[in-house]
Amino acid sequence: MTYYRKLEALFARLSHLDQATGFLHWDMSAVMPEGGAESRGEQLATLKTLSHELLAAPDTKHWLDAAETEDLDPWQRANLAEMRRDWLHAASVPGALVEQLSKICSACEMVWRQARPASDFAQVLEPLGKVLALTREVAEIKSQALGLSPYDALLDQYEPGGRSAEIEILFADLAGFLPGFLQEVLSRQSPAPALPQGPFPVESQKSIGLALMRTLGFDFNHGRLDESLHPFCGGTPDDVRITTRYDAKNFLPSLFGVIHETGHALYEQGLPVAWRHQPVGRARGMSLHESQSLLMEMQACRSRGFFRHLAPLLAEQFGGAGWEADRLYDATLRVKPDFIRVDADEVTYPAHVILRFNLEKALIAGELELAGLPSAWNKGMQDLLGITPPDDRRGCLQDIHWFDGAFGYFPTYSLGAMTAAQLFDAAGREVQGLAGEIEAGNFAPLLSWLRAKVHGQASLLDSGELLRQATGNRLDCQIFKAHLRRRYLN
Amino acid sequence: MTYYRKLEALFARLSHLDQATGFLHWDMSAVMPEGGAESRGEQLATLKTLSHELLAAPDTKHWLDAAETEDLDPWQRANLAEMRRDWLHAASVPGALVEQLSKICSACEMVWRQARPASDFAQVLEPLGKVLALTREVAEIKSQALGLSPYDALLDQYEPGGRSAEIEILFADLAGFLPGFLQEVLSRQSPAPALPQGPFPVESQKSIGLALMRTLGFDFNHGRLDESLHPFCGGTPDDVRITTRYDAKNFLPSLFGVIHETGHALYEQGLPVAWRHQPVGRARGMSLHESQSLLMEMQACRSRGFFRHLAPLLAEQFGGAGWEADRLYDATLRVKPDFIRVDADEVTYPAHVILRFNLEKALIAGELELAGLPSAWNKGMQDLLGITPPDDRRGCLQDIHWFDGAFGYFPTYSLGAMTAAQLFDAAGREVQGLAGEIEAGNFAPLLSWLRAKVHGQASLLDSGELLRQATGNRLDCQIFKAHLRRRYLN
Repeated sequence: MTYYRKLEALFARLSHLDQATGFLHWDMSAVMPEGGAESRGEQLATLKTLSHELLAAPDTKHWLDAAETEDLDPWQRANLAEMRRDWLHAASVPGALVEQLSKICSACEMVWRQARPASDFAQVLEPLGKVLALTREVAEIKSQALGLSPYDALLDQYEPGGRSAEIEILFADLAGFLPGFLQEVLSRQSPAPALPQGPFPVESQKSIGLALMRTLGFDFNHGRLDESLHPFCGGTPDDVRITTRYDAKNFLPSLFGVIHETGHALYEQGLPVAWRHQPVGRARGMSLHESQSLLMEMQACRSRGFFRHLAPLLAEQFGGAGWEADRLYDATLRVKPDFIRVDADEVTYPAHVILRFNLEKALIAGELELAGLPSAWNKGMQDLLGITPPDDRRGCLQDIHWFDGAFGYFPTYSLGAMTAAQLFDAAGREVQGLAGEIEAGNFAPLLSWLRAKVHGQASLLDSGELLRQATGNRLDCQIFKAHLRRRYLN
Repeated sequence: MTYYRKLEALFARLSHLDQATGFLHWDMSAVMPEGGAESRGEQLATLKTLSHELLAAPDTKHWLDAAETEDLDPWQRANLAEMRRDWLHAASVPGALVEQLSKICSACEMVWRQARPASDFAQVLEPLGKVLALTREVAEIKSQALGLSPYDALLDQYEPGGRSAEIEILFADLAGFLPGFLQEVLSRQSPAPALPQGPFPVESQKSIGLALMRTLGFDFNHGRLDESLHPFCGGTPDDVRITTRYDAKNFLPSLFGVIHETGHALYEQGLPVAWRHQPVGRARGMSLHESQSLLMEMQACRSRGFFRHLAPLLAEQFGGAGWEADRLYDATLRVKPDFIRVDADEVTYPAHVILRFNLEKALIAGELELAGLPSAWNKGMQDLLGITPPDDRRGCLQDIHWFDGAFGYFPTYSLGAMTAAQLFDAAGREVQGLAGEIEAGNFAPLLSWLRAKVHGQASLLDSGELLRQATGNRLDCQIFKAHLRRRYLN
């Protein structure tokens, strides 16, 4: 057996373990009774540790080096590069440090769950300090192993090949554009028309969600829709589990939530079967993943055309009057600067992300003391959106990410939004009559373009090169800005 | 760290892996879409292989030997003995043979799924021959390792400490009793009263099932009820997943099915928390497990008293007339020799099991050629129940067990039935007013007796000794026979 084949066998095993972990996570969020939590934590910890042990085993480095000289085709070559990336991330950090950080993160998250509703940053300062200190230690180690800055070493975990220098250029452009644009949008925005009043029965919402999933191209032979407190897309490419949460008073969050998660799911379902359990067969990073959900949610479906497809479906399921497409579109497409990222509209969302990106870079670089985080946060909100959070619950305590140790993740949200705009723009040029097909509820042409340009490419290329081959250019925020102008100023 | 503590850490890991496997199995049966099957098979195979590798690692034997001389309390001592049993079963058989058998079993099961409806034994003869040959090879290896006969080495996998010599004595007693007793029952049995006609809405059946689970003492903070094609009890002690299947035309199978699985579930939920992830903390073998389901289903709930508790519940959920307790009891308590084991009544069931026990012993010993199985089966049915299957679909093709490589499992069904009778008899003597409590729907006194005598003992003792301490005697079929006489001749 060649060394490359040995590595394929090892990484197939790791993929199986990883997939098992994925299902245990889905189960925990969607169906597990509370009393199962403690044992579930132990099951997950053991799977994670075994996975780390297998990957960091003494043979791996030798195999990786030896395989470099073997005769490989481009997919195998890319697979080998992904294997090395996985190995560098895993093997560079001592198991004891990984375990320590994992425990500290769990503990910090517990405190945060109390501190957030109480708006009490002081309460979480100490555990967050520990999380940050250990994360900086990990970042330093990975920085050496990967030859990147400490922050970029963390970013690379979520966004392979992502570099803060490039993101800074994109975000600076956006940050310069947004305040003025926002003022212009707000000054032109007319009052929202009224939406039909609920209640909107959960069963009807579910039927609509399932119908939309089918419309978008979700394959139910390889996936499910369930409920959970925090909607997500989990499972595996062969069995994608998306979840939603129903609110009988408002059907919109679940409706667009299902579309969003379906976008993620279509990416997973479209990954190449031939590379199913290999690193190169995985989705290419978080920004591209987010681009697939936002392409469906924000580009394809938050359009006048799609609302014309949607309106009769809503009228049929919910009954009553007021289901005119244009009224629905105008009622849902609102812009308003506010404090909470997850509730933010498409225009103000990037401001939330830019703020977090700047702050987490400063925290990792040691340029910002944790004690100064609330005031730095509030100042950033004032600069970017012209509002100041009245308390930390609506400020620096709102997101779980840092309290759970996820530094380097935030930028991928807005990179995803920009990527979505750029991909949808290219699809519009290449797929004949795309807008009409979407209005007719026929997503097959769009999906087939995405399958060829994005999903089927898996991790063969880095995000920038994938985007260049798909759209003619690397990521560029002009198309996103043009999209916003077209949608909100016309 | 002592060697014993090293072993505890190893077996905790194995337990976590095992539990992960358990949930993936539950998921596969209860919620997984069909398209997830192939990847799921790979996930399960990897977890199984990793588990085998961890257990059969070179250090384990040394640790087991060294721990023998350490200072251990009785639970630790019993735990060490269970560890050694697990290790002997796992480490004695080469990994390649385990994998080969597992693949052959999957292949044979696939052929069987075709051959059974076609009643075509010839079709499955070749793959079953391979399964049998490899199973005999495993039995021979385990026989050497454990110092048992090949058949007993297989039996020991399901029934720790179970020995065919003891079972033969019990089964010979039963086989001598049953034919005459059956004739007597049949000659006295009056025609069955009519049951209310359905349809019985699935939602109502589910409400009844959930209500009965609560009545019996199921803890929903540590478990769930779901649906699957083949009902089972899965999950883990902290999160027990039982399933059922609803038939709108007949509410009885699901009703008693849920009670049966709840009996299994109560055993799991009652295992001692202090020994959660250790071998000694597991349920003590399949016959005791089956005794807990049958104690609930056949002893406690298939009684005139419990039907008086049940009748108003059914009347309320289903409406209409004809829900008198005695009529329901008489209508459901029917005896009739028939071909299919899983549909058999309490009186004829042991005949099905005795037949399979004799045949599988002969197959493993090489005393019966596979080609002669159908005729040996049919002759046995004639001898034991006085009926001859008209085809192999209703004969030797009916059960999945052998085609899936499970030899040595069948006797535990009837050992369980006898154990249930013996335990319930002792509970009746020790728990004041037990029959009245059951009639009142108060299962707490029975459950608390079972918690003390059975569930809380986990695998501290072997089944025989556990039963002796709980009832005063090792397993003895007189009490089961007396139970049958009382129920069917009075």
